[in-house]
Amino acid sequence: MLEYGDGMRINNVEIYDNERIDDLHRDNLLIIQNPEKFCFGCDAVLLSYFVKIKKNEIALDLGTGTGIIPILLTAKTNGKFFYGLEIQEGPAQMAQRSVDLNNLRDKIEIKCGDLKLACDIYKKSFFDVITVNPPYIVTDGGLKNNFEAKAVARHEVLCTLEDVISVSSKLLKPNGRFYMVHRPHRLTDIITLMAGYKLGAKTIQFVYPKIDKGPTMVLVEAVRGAKPMLNVLKPLIIYGADGRYTDEINDIYYGGC
Amino acid sequence: MLEYGDGMRINNVEIYDNERIDDLHRDNLLIIQNPEKFCFGCDAVLLSYFVKIKKNEIALDLGTGTGIIPILLTAKTNGKFFYGLEIQEGPAQMAQRSVDLNNLRDKIEIKCGDLKLACDIYKKSFFDVITVNPPYIVTDGGLKNNFEAKAVARHEVLCTLEDVISVSSKLLKPNGRFYMVHRPHRLTDIITLMAGYKLGAKTIQFVYPKIDKGPTMVLVEAVRGAKPMLNVLKPLIIYGADGRYTDEINDIYYGGC
Repeated sequence: MLEYGDGMRINNVEIYDNERIDDLHRDNLLIIQNPEKFCFGCDAVLLSYFVKIKKNEIALDLGTGTGIIPILLTAKTNGKFFYGLEIQEGPAQMAQRSVDLNNLRDKIEIKCGDLKLACDIYKKSFFDVITVNPPYIVTDGGLKNNFEAKAVARHEVLCTLEDVISVSSKLLKPNGRFYMVHRPHRLTDIITLMAGYKLGAKTIQFVYPKIDKGPTMVLVEAVRGAKPMLNVLKPLIIYGADGRYTDEINDIYYGGC
Repeated sequence: MLEYGDGMRINNVEIYDNERIDDLHRDNLLIIQNPEKFCFGCDAVLLSYFVKIKKNEIALDLGTGTGIIPILLTAKTNGKFFYGLEIQEGPAQMAQRSVDLNNLRDKIEIKCGDLKLACDIYKKSFFDVITVNPPYIVTDGGLKNNFEAKAVARHEVLCTLEDVISVSSKLLKPNGRFYMVHRPHRLTDIITLMAGYKLGAKTIQFVYPKIDKGPTMVLVEAVRGAKPMLNVLKPLIIYGADGRYTDEINDIYYGGC
């Protein structure tokens, strides 16, 4: 399902020019996206699959973008409440309209704010779970003044990996869980920074585009205060030998889990 | 090929009771093993496959055991000279006899000594490459007095992971390369300790017994002084769906690479 909005309203929610509505193939959930400015990626969907949230737990998604992660997690888990923090006003408003479109105001709260200041916005040691699909690319000086929405989502313009990890450690309860999707080439930084902020890496899974290729993503679970004892899961492979999604990816996108 | 020795001599090398000679399926190389005391494992063979040694480079294998790694590397690479250090007298003598059996005295030198004291045995900043297949298991107090050969090879009785990494960093030239096979659950310790001793993780490869199982080994390449920028390779899978070695493993054991 795919509809382009041009000022139309659905469920009393306004859809703007160039926006479209996508079906998340789960509990009839919908999401508003703007292909020119901001779309969720495969990584956010895989992170939602990887995250474990128990009954009545409270979760925060840092840099929530379209709101895809909290929206998917309302359907996929028995969590009590989901917070989403997004620094950019446009995507934050769009995420709020997706929450409204799905009638999820009693489950999700979106706020526009800077994750570096998240300890002023939320209570410390409050969350059971933090999720984050942060910008992947280390910036050089050249991009510092580029605040275009896609650049902010992809480059460490407004926050670094260390910002993400340090603030998550402060916001999580003891034994709270931190879930992140990132690029494998940053794994050394990820593990050493997490260790420095008392987030013990617990589980990781590499996502390989094909069985004969290096991984393009890594999914990480860490626990605040845990000792390092890593469980590396089976490889998650996106495309089979026939060039089509593997059964597992089809399940994640369209089915069961 | 498999022969049991009972005091016999081959090429003027004595083979002791309970020892056997195995064919390494490469350049007619042979190796003496004692199944009751000390055999090399799949991990040593996979490490030898993973190691890259350039022409005229000099390498040291810490905790060389049977000497399998330097012996295989003489056939697999154009390295100039290979040193092997083994703390246990029995395996060190057995490794020396395998060197003699293969007429490799001009390529390999085995020494019996403690890797913790390796900087007194070899020159610092001397080696282009260090290889190590260290004990995997963190000991509790109970095993401290168990010096049986297999226990020493498997448990951190006589050296810890930190000993291995710190001494390797001192012995390597700047930009020298460190290769290790270990267990994935220790990856956090591996990466943080290496970072602490200026060994930047460069390449890792996970070894999965089957495509739907978690990895049982991780192969690590680090470079002394390198910045962290990790290349995670394609999964190395041991058994196919038919329960037999994959082509890649057959190649490593019996073929080309």
